[in-house]
Order: sequence, then structure tokens, then C-alpha cells
Amino acid sequence: MELNNAKGTTDFSGATMAKRKQLINMLESVFKLYSYEELDTPIIERYDVLTYKYGDDAPILNEIFKLKDQGDRDLCLRYDLTVPFSRFIGMNTTLKMPYKRFAVGKVYRDGPVKLGRTREFIQCDFDMVGSKKIDCEIEVLSILFRAFDKIGIDINIEINNVIFLKALIRYCGIPDQDIPKFVSIIDKVKKISKKQFETELVEQGFDKNKVDELIQKLNFKTNKEKFGFLTKILTDDENIKLNEFKLLLDAFGDKNLVFNLGLARGFNYYTGPVFEVYDNSKTISSSLAGGGRFDEMIGNYLDGKREFPAVGGSFGLEPIMVLIEKLDDQIVNENKLFIIPINNYIKSLEIAEQFRDSGINTGIDLTGRNVGKNMDYANSKKYEYVIVIGENELSSNKFKLKNMETGEEREVSIKQAIKILK
Amino acid sequence: MELNNAKGTTDFSGATMAKRKQLINMLESVFKLYSYEELDTPIIERYDVLTYKYGDDAPILNEIFKLKDQGDRDLCLRYDLTVPFSRFIGMNTTLKMPYKRFAVGKVYRDGPVKLGRTREFIQCDFDMVGSKKIDCEIEVLSILFRAFDKIGIDINIEINNVIFLKALIRYCGIPDQDIPKFVSIIDKVKKISKKQFETELVEQGFDKNKVDELIQKLNFKTNKEKFGFLTKILTDDENIKLNEFKLLLDAFGDKNLVFNLGLARGFNYYTGPVFEVYDNSKTISSSLAGGGRFDEMIGNYLDGKREFPAVGGSFGLEPIMVLIEKLDDQIVNENKLFIIPINNYIKSLEIAEQFRDSGINTGIDLTGRNVGKNMDYANSKKYEYVIVIGENELSSNKFKLKNMETGEEREVSIKQAIKILK
Repeated sequence: MELNNAKGTTDFSGATMAKRKQLINMLESVFKLYSYEELDTPIIERYDVLTYKYGDDAPILNEIFKLKDQGDRDLCLRYDLTVPFSRFIGMNTTLKMPYKRFAVGKVYRDGPVKLGRTREFIQCDFDMVGSKKIDCEIEVLSILFRAFDKIGIDINIEINNVIFLKALIRYCGIPDQDIPKFVSIIDKVKKISKKQFETELVEQGFDKNKVDELIQKLNFKTNKEKFGFLTKILTDDENIKLNEFKLLLDAFGDKNLVFNLGLARGFNYYTGPVFEVYDNSKTISSSLAGGGRFDEMIGNYLDGKREFPAVGGSFGLEPIMVLIEKLDDQIVNENKLFIIPINNYIKSLEIAEQFRDSGINTGIDLTGRNVGKNMDYANSKKYEYVIVIGENELSSNKFKLKNMETGEEREVSIKQAIKILK
Repeated sequence: MELNNAKGTTDFSGATMAKRKQLINMLESVFKLYSYEELDTPIIERYDVLTYKYGDDAPILNEIFKLKDQGDRDLCLRYDLTVPFSRFIGMNTTLKMPYKRFAVGKVYRDGPVKLGRTREFIQCDFDMVGSKKIDCEIEVLSILFRAFDKIGIDINIEINNVIFLKALIRYCGIPDQDIPKFVSIIDKVKKISKKQFETELVEQGFDKNKVDELIQKLNFKTNKEKFGFLTKILTDDENIKLNEFKLLLDAFGDKNLVFNLGLARGFNYYTGPVFEVYDNSKTISSSLAGGGRFDEMIGNYLDGKREFPAVGGSFGLEPIMVLIEKLDDQIVNENKLFIIPINNYIKSLEIAEQFRDSGINTGIDLTGRNVGKNMDYANSKKYEYVIVIGENELSSNKFKLKNMETGEEREVSIKQAIKILK
């Protein structure tokens, strides 16, 4: 037998795990600051429920892990947190609206494994249901700015409204049935050069003049130009959305919020503003978070009996972790004190318990091995301080508190040591 | 389509979820106090790895959820946290020992669903590998006592050593091959009367005199009687274990630690001391936590190339939650302040952000609905305070801070309100 993980899955341990957890805890505390409550849904779901809104040929179906229970029921592993969220809303229609929830959990996709793409990964979502007002998008953006500020990552957020992009495409004379293909090419603009972009569009059979015009519009430099152009091509109802959009941009006047008319992000899913968060230092090119308004998805999923306007965001744990790993000052050492008893474990344990009573994370030797080996261990586990406890120390109540970084030793009582370590 | 959860799985939301998370966070903080680090292993594992140590007819195999990936690999969902932990140890043989880890995660068993038995449930384990000393068991018990003290549940811990029970059974003349059957009957003593117990043993073909003698020994009242009897029947090596066991009992002299010679707990798995935690109020009869020493399991799993002595414990999240739900004072309300803007969302949002800057969990109306409806909402979401913000409030910087429990209103500035709510 080959002792190994299932393909595309990873173990997380030690400092890496501690940092992941610190990030998750931090995000959760931000969600709570904005009154989002936690929702935990199962990892296994009924196959019919999870795939209800898809045709039999939807690409996601190929990536769903399927399984059966003893009753021969068709089940699967969830592939995102949004569909289980929709199921939950549908099963709990008496929930007070707006319902605001966050969820951090593992999801599964049986796709190709490559760098940055695993089969088990964590999604970290926050969404609200129950209001169509732009106030919701403003809250979601506030959460994104606050969270990255707390993490210590300098970001910019690109924002668009899918209504504007659709209007632009219409304006360029692209027929409705070509919109999805067209958008998937626009989505690549970031990755390919403008020349390649033009070539691809023309190769796909789009008219060169129309393509050139589109590229020109996508490259408006100022918001004023964009607004001026959009005002002319939007319908009256769409112009109301444009005014709301301006209000939103104004609300974040001093932040790095950039109106990008080419941002497409899940065009078939979103119905209003969409946004993506990028690392300003350009260390990571993929987005760190994203989201938008999806007013139709939950309702469609629930047979359209009722409207469920929704807005939300999702943090990309993995790219954020890559950046955090580079920020050394973000590492919080959780191991504080290591106690080495010399043949007096029970008495040393009583002392260890006093440190723990004061909330100080304290380890103690459990092997009875010698001081040198224990020092090595304490060092490798990054304990900040060590105390060796022998008979002399116990009878005099004087202990040498060794700082493992500087090597400095201070003779202290337990009370004093607790004060220093707290 | 029937909108429903997969059989045997549950959604957790609202106050229930908040309390579950508080319990988990609390347990994690205790594990860290004792220098345990977090390990997160995948929920999907290779089938051959997870079932390696079982024969083809092991009962657990019937309860494993199986699945395949696109490469037709046989996979399964983990059914506990110990086997993945063993795999991790085997794949990381350079880990510094002792390695102490905790893990809180979902596990899956495709068994019968009944009250208190679901197919997806959370295990909450802490284990250490790398020392045979009784110091480890003492640490594990310290963790259990501290954790339940923090939770606010009055417990007693029953403890035994499987070596003593085996010696007792041997002494009663039960042949080795009958030990498992015998132990599974002893395990029932708690649930059935002594008379039933005797009847069942005799029916199973055990000699009545031997059974009577066993029952007499199991009913020794004092530790002195137990020790006196055991000293006589144990081998020299086993008597060393008995002396260590006495040391352990002495270390917890003032705690509710009870030596129960009949405690069997996973006889084939444990190799030394075993323990189970019970609710002193008897509200819940099943154990709240348990654990013990398993010196052979990891090594066997890894082809016995190296010794991996291990001790650990496991918290039963569900029975503990049942008790917590009864302790009303344990409920921590996470929603602090709800702000109702009257046609001034952006300005009210700036104020909300000031509260959030001070760490106060703050909600704000996102629907634009009237004050009455918003008051209902704030009440149903258990916000402690509400502020309604109109033009007068903004121009005068005087706000009415309404205490939602007492109904009392205080006129304050934002600075004062932050001080009050912090």
C-alpha cells in the first residue's frame, strides 16, 4: 500500500495551519462586525438538489464527486457554498429578511489538479438575501476593504455592472446568442494582449470594425468618459442603475475602487454590480476575492415562487495565504512557554497549570529526556521562553526564565514570570 | 424535486451555530494552552489507506461512504480523525516528537440514523505521539478537567487500565479467545442490572462461579480494595503500571476521578489507561468525552517499522451541546447595535464603521423600510441596542441609544455610545 493522500488533497499542519486558521478567524470576526451570522451546511448533499438548475450537459456536472448511501440514494459532495445556501433559504422561508450569513467550508471539484488548483479547497463566502438596494453592495465592499486592511494587504477593487457590459455589447451589434462566447473572450483581456484579443475576436467571426469600437470603449481612461458614453446607450431603467453605481463609487472616493467596463465575472450568474479584488503589489495576479449581485439565482432555484435578491462576496483563501506567507510580521507564535521538569513532573505540572490559568500557552516535557534534547525540541517548536525546574528551583521559588531568542536568563518567581509572559 | 438535506445530515444556523462555534473555539483555546497544534487533514482519503488495517469483514467497512475520482481511483470519506492522523504521522516521520495535535472536523458513517446518531458529525480530538510515560495521561486528564470547567459542566471521569481488566478476566479463568465477547458484556453493566448481567454471562456459557467472583471484584467499593486485589494477580511488569496508575490518581486527589475496574472502552484499540467523562448532573447518560492510551495502533498501521506510543482524548460535541443548550447564561449575543438610517444610508454607514472600528458588531438597515419594521427585525435578531439616525441626529450629533431589553433611551454622542457598547 502506498501511504498517500487522495489526489488533489493536502494536509495542513504546524505554522502553515496556524496562519490559515488566524486568517479564517480574522475574516469571521469581520463578518460578525457587520452582523453576518454563521451557517454550516453539510458537505454531502442530494444529487438531484445540487444539480437541479443545470442541464445534463453543464460542465460542472463532470466535476461533481458522486456517491450513494446504504439506501441507494444519489448523493454528491458540494462544489460550492452558494447552492447549499440557496437550498437552506428555500427550506427556511420564514427567515427574517435580510438574512445575512457567512460560511467557511470545504468544497470539492473532481477536475484537473495543478498549481493552485486542488480537488478539496476552502471557500469563504458572505452573502445577504432580501434587498435590492445598492446599500448592500456598499456594505459588501466595506467588508472587503476592512478585511484586507486587517490582513495588511494593499488592494484595489475592480468593479463593473453586468448591465453596462451587456449594453456595450448590444451597442456593438453583437447578437444576443453570441454574448456568452463574446464575454468569455473579454474575460481574457487581462491575460492576453490587446492585439491577441482583437485577433481572437475576429477569428471567432466577429466584425473587425465592431471589435475595434468595443476595444476603444473598453479603454476609456476616465470615469467621466465611461459615464458619458453609457448614459447615451443605456435605457431609462438602466440609467437609474448607473446613477446608483455613481453613488457607490462616490461612497468610496478615497479607496482604490476602479470602474472596469470590461470586468465580466460569471456573466450568467450575476445580475448587477460585480467586483474583483487584486493585490496592489502585483505579487499575485489572480483575484484575491470577488463577488456581486445575483438577484435571480436563488429564486430560479426555488421555482421562482418568490424573489430572493442577493449580494455577496467570496474570499480566495489560497492566494491570500500565498501573500500572508510573505508577510513575516503577520506570524503569531502560539507557543509561549516550555517547562522542563527534572524528575518532578507532578510539581512542575502544577506550575504549568498556573501559567495556563493566566491564558499562557504552555508546554511541558512528557518524555523525561534530558535538558539538551528538550531545549532542541523547544527551539524547533518556536517556544519563546523555557524554564527548567529542578529541586533547587522548587525549594527557593526562584526560576530561570530563558528567552529563547536572545538567550538571556532572568531569575524570577512564578508570579513575576506570569506577569512577563502575559 | 424534494428540497431537502441528504439523509442523516443537518444545517446549523443562528444561535445554535453560534453556540457550537463558541464551544469549538473554547476547546481549541484549551488545546493551545497545552501546546497542541492544529492539524487539518482532507475529508476524502484513499480507500486502501483508510481500510488498510481492517479485514474485509470488519463492521466499519459497511459504514464507509465510497466514491471514485475521474481517474477511477477508489476513495472514501473519513469515518474518524485517528486513521488520517496515523497516515499523516506515517508520511511525516521527521516530525519532532512528541507531536501533539488537535483536530476538529466532520466525519462520515453510513449507518442507521436515529436520535443522536447522524451520518455527518463533528469529532473533536487531541492526541500526542512519542512518549510512553504516564505524564501524558495526566496531561490529557488535565485538559479534560480544564475544558469542562471552562464550559461550566460539572463532570466526573471514570478511569481504568485495560491491563487490569484483562488480568481480572484471566484470573476468572476465561480463555483468551473469549475475552472480546466477555468484555462486550462487561461494557453493558452500566445499562443492565447486575442480575441481567450475571444471567447473560451464564447464558453465553461462562461458569457461574467465575462470573460471581468477577462481579464481586468489579464491585469493590474502595481503591484500597481494588489495589490490594490487583497487586496479587498482576505480573511484575503490570504492577509497575499499577504504581503509575496510583500516581495518576493521587495527582487528581481533589477532582472527581473514579477508578472503575469495569470500564472497557474500545478494548482492541487501547493498550493502557482508558477514561470516560460523565455529566455529574446525570442530565445526559452517555459519555461527554473519552480517550486513552493506544501504543500499538499507529505503529501497526505503519507496518510496525517504528514504535509510536500515543495517548489522546475526544470530545463529544453533540452531548455537550445538549447540556449547553440548557445553560442559558452560556449564550453570548453577538449582535450588539443596529442602526436605522432615515434616507441617509451613506452618512449612517460612516457612523456604523466607527462602531466597527472599535470592535462593536453593528448591523445597519439595507432595505430602506420603515422604523417599525426595522425595530421588529432588530428585536428578532436580538440586537442589544438600536440607534435611529435622521437629519436632526446628524446635525446635532445627539443620538438616542435605545436599550432593546429595557426600552430605555439615552441621548448620547457617537463617542459616548462607543464607550457604552464596548
